[in-house]
Amino acid sequence: MRKADTDIGLIGLAVMGQNLALNINDKGYSIAVFNRTTKKTEDFIAGPAKGRETVYGAYTLEDFVSLLSRPRKIILMVKAGSVVDDFINSLLPLLEEGDVIIDGGNSYFEDSIRRTKELDAKGILFVGTGISGGEEGARKGPSMMPGGNPKAWPIVKDIFQSIAAKTPDGKACCDWVGPDGAGHFVKMVHNGIEYGDMQIISEVYHIMKSLLGLSHEEMADIFEQWNRGSLNSYLIEITRDILRYKDSDGTPLLENILDTAGQKGTGKWTGIEALEHGVPVTLIVEAVFARALSAFKEERVRASELFGEPVIPWSGSKEEKAKIVLDLGEALLASKIISYAQGFMLMREASISNNWSLDFANIATLWRAGCIIRSVFLDKIREAYSDNPGLENLLFAPFFKNTLLKAESSWRRVISLASIHGIPVPAMSSALSFFFAYRSSRLPANMIQAQRDYFGAHTYERTDKPRGQFFHTNWTGEGGAATSGTYNA
Amino acid sequence: MRKADTDIGLIGLAVMGQNLALNINDKGYSIAVFNRTTKKTEDFIAGPAKGRETVYGAYTLEDFVSLLSRPRKIILMVKAGSVVDDFINSLLPLLEEGDVIIDGGNSYFEDSIRRTKELDAKGILFVGTGISGGEEGARKGPSMMPGGNPKAWPIVKDIFQSIAAKTPDGKACCDWVGPDGAGHFVKMVHNGIEYGDMQIISEVYHIMKSLLGLSHEEMADIFEQWNRGSLNSYLIEITRDILRYKDSDGTPLLENILDTAGQKGTGKWTGIEALEHGVPVTLIVEAVFARALSAFKEERVRASELFGEPVIPWSGSKEEKAKIVLDLGEALLASKIISYAQGFMLMREASISNNWSLDFANIATLWRAGCIIRSVFLDKIREAYSDNPGLENLLFAPFFKNTLLKAESSWRRVISLASIHGIPVPAMSSALSFFFAYRSSRLPANMIQAQRDYFGAHTYERTDKPRGQFFHTNWTGEGGAATSGTYNA
Repeated sequence: MRKADTDIGLIGLAVMGQNLALNINDKGYSIAVFNRTTKKTEDFIAGPAKGRETVYGAYTLEDFVSLLSRPRKIILMVKAGSVVDDFINSLLPLLEEGDVIIDGGNSYFEDSIRRTKELDAKGILFVGTGISGGEEGARKGPSMMPGGNPKAWPIVKDIFQSIAAKTPDGKACCDWVGPDGAGHFVKMVHNGIEYGDMQIISEVYHIMKSLLGLSHEEMADIFEQWNRGSLNSYLIEITRDILRYKDSDGTPLLENILDTAGQKGTGKWTGIEALEHGVPVTLIVEAVFARALSAFKEERVRASELFGEPVIPWSGSKEEKAKIVLDLGEALLASKIISYAQGFMLMREASISNNWSLDFANIATLWRAGCIIRSVFLDKIREAYSDNPGLENLLFAPFFKNTLLKAESSWRRVISLASIHGIPVPAMSSALSFFFAYRSSRLPANMIQAQRDYFGAHTYERTDKPRGQFFHTNWTGEGGAATSGTYNA
Repeated sequence: MRKADTDIGLIGLAVMGQNLALNINDKGYSIAVFNRTTKKTEDFIAGPAKGRETVYGAYTLEDFVSLLSRPRKIILMVKAGSVVDDFINSLLPLLEEGDVIIDGGNSYFEDSIRRTKELDAKGILFVGTGISGGEEGARKGPSMMPGGNPKAWPIVKDIFQSIAAKTPDGKACCDWVGPDGAGHFVKMVHNGIEYGDMQIISEVYHIMKSLLGLSHEEMADIFEQWNRGSLNSYLIEITRDILRYKDSDGTPLLENILDTAGQKGTGKWTGIEALEHGVPVTLIVEAVFARALSAFKEERVRASELFGEPVIPWSGSKEEKAKIVLDLGEALLASKIISYAQGFMLMREASISNNWSLDFANIATLWRAGCIIRSVFLDKIREAYSDNPGLENLLFAPFFKNTLLKAESSWRRVISLASIHGIPVPAMSSALSFFFAYRSSRLPANMIQAQRDYFGAHTYERTDKPRGQFFHTNWTGEGGAATSGTYNA
């Protein structure tokens, strides 16, 4: 007879759910699992969980809930969206006040805001937690970004922190992010940054392969070398592995993979939030659009026939090639710094407008290990915000400032080279333009303001007058004195 | 005693509403006007409308509605959002079946979809019409993009087409765009394109001024010359005027205008729709973000002190300078082509997913005159879609293809130059990367797919297998056979 003393329950036995369940059990917690399709539960119990005496398969929600000790802790590892609401609604009649529902999927943060509120009104504590690290992370220790009802944190903290990844100095990559949707928002930005990191690596690979004509072993060696320095990170490491991986015929598997990238939504959401908040998160958005454009495969092939391929061959000495490779490493690092700075700018704005009081040093720690973007680099971000919690912008921190200034000439040369030779570098060039514009005390936006005032009487401010005073010029001598009030052209 | 025989009513007497009212009256239609603030109505009647016997000021909505002949036609020129709904709700009890409410503001197209449906259920015909052209356009003939309830079109067509701008060959820049939100969607894309056009002009101005050191008269002369060729357009024309305009002290007014660009939402919406539809509308989004970044003025000034200004001075002969100016014209034109192609790609996707059956030749005609982006260029777009209504992409049309290929070397040089010398060119460089990627039969997205499969078991397709077959590689020899199903890392 099974008793109601199981530590935690988990619903959803796809790859992440299975691995997380095993991870939780490894840490000494008993766990009940449930899946809508019974067969998956059976397969999991008879397969990966075989021989584990404290992993219990349940085949009805009633049985599942009855196994849990109170306050019950139920983690949903199901597809984001209505499936989450469906499970919550099915669970509600079976739960009691003070029980905790945890959504570990990639939910939209606005849904987590709503669910926190709705469940709180029913006495149920909601946690929306980002979980990153993919299959391996879930199994061995993911990065976790919990937000939601603060009253739930003491209840789940021990389990969460014991299953989470640890930084090299032993700190759990899991800590409370903030109220309601804060955890899922931060996970969304994490994923956006992941899109960016992957895109800039791809751009560098494209230049190495199509312009410099490097072999896959040569490229792998370069990524291996980069992985020993400031670029040290999981994504650089797996890029090296991918470049070395051979297909059954001995050729690089990479070249047999179709160049059509998929996406699941979090990159897109980051872009939308950036637009909504008016924060120029240009690199991530270019990365999202680069994936979108890759999906127009047939149209691209037809365009390549009509226009010809864009690449103008490069030729140069071995020394020149080596110099470009060095430049590429600098350009990659510099672009990465810009991308993270943009991501933190977005979190800063969201934190203010949602009253989340996000702790950026903490967030950098959460991402330090376990997740896809884990890197040595994140230590530098943690340091920057620890040294100066009021840091206006990541770029102002000495390490990032100095690294950018050191990388700058290389980075300029790389974008110039790619532009002349026909390699698309949407993310790295967008980052360079951002860097130029961000440190320009004077941008050509005065022209835009003049145009808007000319055609729409939108008014402008003046450099020689205090902010907040608006002027209108009758540019043509024809318009009236009326300015654009309620109507905006 | 006033009679219920007034042709049309207009609510909202800000700059656009006033000018549109005068335009309607000029074309021989009697018009009743109403404004929530009575004073504005009084000022309009006593001022701009003075002496016009068929412009009637109304001071209550009841009086306003009672003046109109049936079916009543009421055009709202009020702030987009809840104000529109408020007026609709106030009007509803006063209207009868078959009356027409027209929203001429910059409403979000989803609102127009909703309003069309809600009002149709009440027997009221809704029209959501984009109106572009600013103050001058509204007065002399705007571009109009009506969508909504198709039953309303025969009722408003004559008035609309008589007040609209006319193309050089006499066609009204107003025709039915499509059902429900189609008109406002197309207006939104129009505004997005306007953001893009303004940004690339600003980037060119920035290079001319900060790198080449041209005087305002020299720049004005260049824009004047460009306005005689393929770039001939309203925005190029007003840029010339702006460059020549002198402040009270005789210096160029432009340089006294603060470099902090405002925005009202339609550019942002275009970017969000592009992300939602997975269409890489990169140039417009970069333009939106460039405005956003310009607004971080104080932070930029501090960054410029910390990093130093980005510009590395350029020096060259008069001949080299002249050559760069030629290159700039080509880069501007090429970037513009990409921006419009991206905008039409977005409309294509939206047309399919909303069942709008948009007619792209028609849309180009609507934009040909009256609106802010009016240009000779739009004739070429109209021709392209008239010649081949099934045209897959604007870039495939011979004129655009040839123009791009002719401009390409110049464009590459401009982006290279700006990258080396530190001028931000986010929009033009983004367009160049798009052009490279769009015509690449092979992009580095295979790397992204390999990475996603590596860390998240997201699977990939292969170049040597049919589309739709998905493969997973156990890259590390450690993961299981499970692929990413319901959960996405």
